[in-house]
Amino acid sequence: MSGAIRMVDVIDRKRLGEALTEGEIAAVVADFTAGRIPDYQMAALLMAIVCRGMSAAETTALTLAMARSGELLDLSDIAPVVADKHSTGGVGDKTTLVVAPVVAACGVHVGKMSGRGLAHTGGTIDKLESIDGFTATLPADRFRALLRAHRLVLAGQSAELAPADGLIYALRDATATVQSIPLIASSIMSKKLAAGATAILLDVKVGRGAFMTTLAEARALAELMVAIGQGAGRRTRAVLSAMDQPLGRAVGNALEVAEAVATLRGQGPADFADLCRHEAGALLALAGAARDAAEGERMAAAAVASGAALATFAACVAAQGGDARQVEQPARLPAAPVVVEVASPRAGWLAGIDALQIGRLAMRLGGGRQRKGDPIDHRVGLVLWAKVGDRLAAGDPLVAVHAARAEDAAALRDDLLAAYAWSDAPVAAPPLLLGEVG
Amino acid sequence: MSGAIRMVDVIDRKRLGEALTEGEIAAVVADFTAGRIPDYQMAALLMAIVCRGMSAAETTALTLAMARSGELLDLSDIAPVVADKHSTGGVGDKTTLVVAPVVAACGVHVGKMSGRGLAHTGGTIDKLESIDGFTATLPADRFRALLRAHRLVLAGQSAELAPADGLIYALRDATATVQSIPLIASSIMSKKLAAGATAILLDVKVGRGAFMTTLAEARALAELMVAIGQGAGRRTRAVLSAMDQPLGRAVGNALEVAEAVATLRGQGPADFADLCRHEAGALLALAGAARDAAEGERMAAAAVASGAALATFAACVAAQGGDARQVEQPARLPAAPVVVEVASPRAGWLAGIDALQIGRLAMRLGGGRQRKGDPIDHRVGLVLWAKVGDRLAAGDPLVAVHAARAEDAAALRDDLLAAYAWSDAPVAAPPLLLGEVG
Repeated sequence: MSGAIRMVDVIDRKRLGEALTEGEIAAVVADFTAGRIPDYQMAALLMAIVCRGMSAAETTALTLAMARSGELLDLSDIAPVVADKHSTGGVGDKTTLVVAPVVAACGVHVGKMSGRGLAHTGGTIDKLESIDGFTATLPADRFRALLRAHRLVLAGQSAELAPADGLIYALRDATATVQSIPLIASSIMSKKLAAGATAILLDVKVGRGAFMTTLAEARALAELMVAIGQGAGRRTRAVLSAMDQPLGRAVGNALEVAEAVATLRGQGPADFADLCRHEAGALLALAGAARDAAEGERMAAAAVASGAALATFAACVAAQGGDARQVEQPARLPAAPVVVEVASPRAGWLAGIDALQIGRLAMRLGGGRQRKGDPIDHRVGLVLWAKVGDRLAAGDPLVAVHAARAEDAAALRDDLLAAYAWSDAPVAAPPLLLGEVG
Repeated sequence: MSGAIRMVDVIDRKRLGEALTEGEIAAVVADFTAGRIPDYQMAALLMAIVCRGMSAAETTALTLAMARSGELLDLSDIAPVVADKHSTGGVGDKTTLVVAPVVAACGVHVGKMSGRGLAHTGGTIDKLESIDGFTATLPADRFRALLRAHRLVLAGQSAELAPADGLIYALRDATATVQSIPLIASSIMSKKLAAGATAILLDVKVGRGAFMTTLAEARALAELMVAIGQGAGRRTRAVLSAMDQPLGRAVGNALEVAEAVATLRGQGPADFADLCRHEAGALLALAGAARDAAEGERMAAAAVASGAALATFAACVAAQGGDARQVEQPARLPAAPVVVEVASPRAGWLAGIDALQIGRLAMRLGGGRQRKGDPIDHRVGLVLWAKVGDRLAAGDPLVAVHAARAEDAAALRDDLLAAYAWSDAPVAAPPLLLGEVG
């Protein structure tokens, strides 16, 4: 390490639960990124951080150091405010595909950089790549040009932004140091800060299908990320939303694009449409385009009703090389050759749909990836005809399984039904919105 | 890793504070030793162990796996009981040089394997190498032959014994994972178990100059090591002894050999001679040569009074190539060219001598090593004319500094005096023996 700071002393101080200084953290990130700190020392420090924690000040220092490890986009010449929206990941979470066009249609620039899906949660880029010809790989000048021209760009995460995050994340993945609120917060926020957005809405998912399984953890993560964003001078706000059952009805890449388009037409499932309107309203208020979230929600509803939101999405897709006809007519999206309907095995009220299990089943159909770089089948997935609180009769439609082969659909039938819990008494539909921070 | 065990899952379970199974621990040690687990994963696991701890059962499994990573000596064809004595390390700790010959002179085989000194504490092998020609590097067959012929062998740690310990220790040193009672216990005991002794006396040092600075930590370490030893079928007992001020008067390799010889002649400093007699008595009882520790102490005193203990030491030194005349006449040992007497700067009672600081000053004179493999000067060191509780007048002899150059002695004078605390009221000599375990 540079100067008088010795890595073994830094590790030792964190082992003892002491707070590291901004200078120490900056030196660790710079030296690790440059290859001057070996992986085994970084792994020991990461585990010490997982076990002993980091203060908000330390986490902010880590986030800024990671953001500064590469290029920092400055979009202020394009618009005074550029909005971004980030979800911590869930099953059936196609919110970005609705919120980003709605907000852009209301006059706010939205420059969104997204990751790909991993494990049981899907990624926005994977979903968009269901559309023929769509590309999310954009050099910085093309990103800027599209943002200027269309007010909306939906890009993949550039490797030049926050390279320290990629290096550290790979090591965390191999050393069981992923589960740490400060490390999760710094990983997410370093990329947000580097990507240049000045109004950031975070959607922190909570529940069986999310990385944060308790409300307390989710709130802690949200508060930390909001503090980091605000500390770095960005307008930042977080929504806490439920991820016990999948969001909306569609789980699977092309199926989710179709559901997003339906929602942009005002025909989406109620739970999902409500969440999108709420988030769009909050982001419009955060960006200063609405006086408050309530006005923002009215603007969002109007942008959907007028068709402006869908037109904005179609224009963005076309500008990024995608076939806009598939947005206007989702029946043109790639479709699975086999659709098997699974009927309700009993009468009663739906009491639970295990989002984690549904996410894993979608992955088993070929719609997700276990490892970075695995290919995915955009056509496959599940459509959930019923949600928690719905009353069904035996034989009612429960799930449509969209599969590449009939045997794939047959093979998961038992595990699919095992994801459902039932009640003989009425069950209330659970709230989707659990809180807000910032 | 072999079979169904994935290292990342093992790390994750320990991160969560769960107990690892014997099978998991054995697989980790075997696979790490064979190079099948990368350093960064092992570093993460070690830090998780430091932070979350390990049970006695886990620590025993780790110790046995490390012991089995190499050759396991079986000395049962030489003697039914082979004794060993191990100190966790202190300043001026030449106890082994007295206890081992005394116990051997009383009829018990002593097959001792020792390490070299590191940081502020000296190592038995470094001290013995003050004697011209002495070698501690003994192949296994030579170790066995000397043990059979002389009942006493003082060897260096063989690299074939517990190689996993060496690999893990090097990683701990670079990743601030040294300070962990389970890891310290397993490191010490894996070597003891591999070296074949069946009666093991542990001397766990406590205080400023020791690795364990509190009695509670030292007792926890002692209890764990005794449990491991007894669990592995070895008679094991531990003594807890004070290491706030240096042990005896001499600190430095040749100076300590001379003090050990004086003690074997019955002319050693009272504190040190008492501790040696106590430990020899305990080890004789543990080995079954004495009915109890009190009888063992009487046997030890007789072996000193008769000259048998010194003769046993001299024969051992000669058998290992050393110049036995230097044992019989310590004035023949290598001597520092410069001896500077430092006088007491004031009158009063000595209230404290900081052992850590004294150890570091001896190292600065060239008597210790900062890094493995550093050369050391066997001649240099300090002789403390007064100990805590002594009353001095201003100008009384306080310390003799044995140095390679006059400027070395002059340079440490201020730091040396800073290691002393004084009182205007009488101070009692502190107890040396703090407890026993096993």
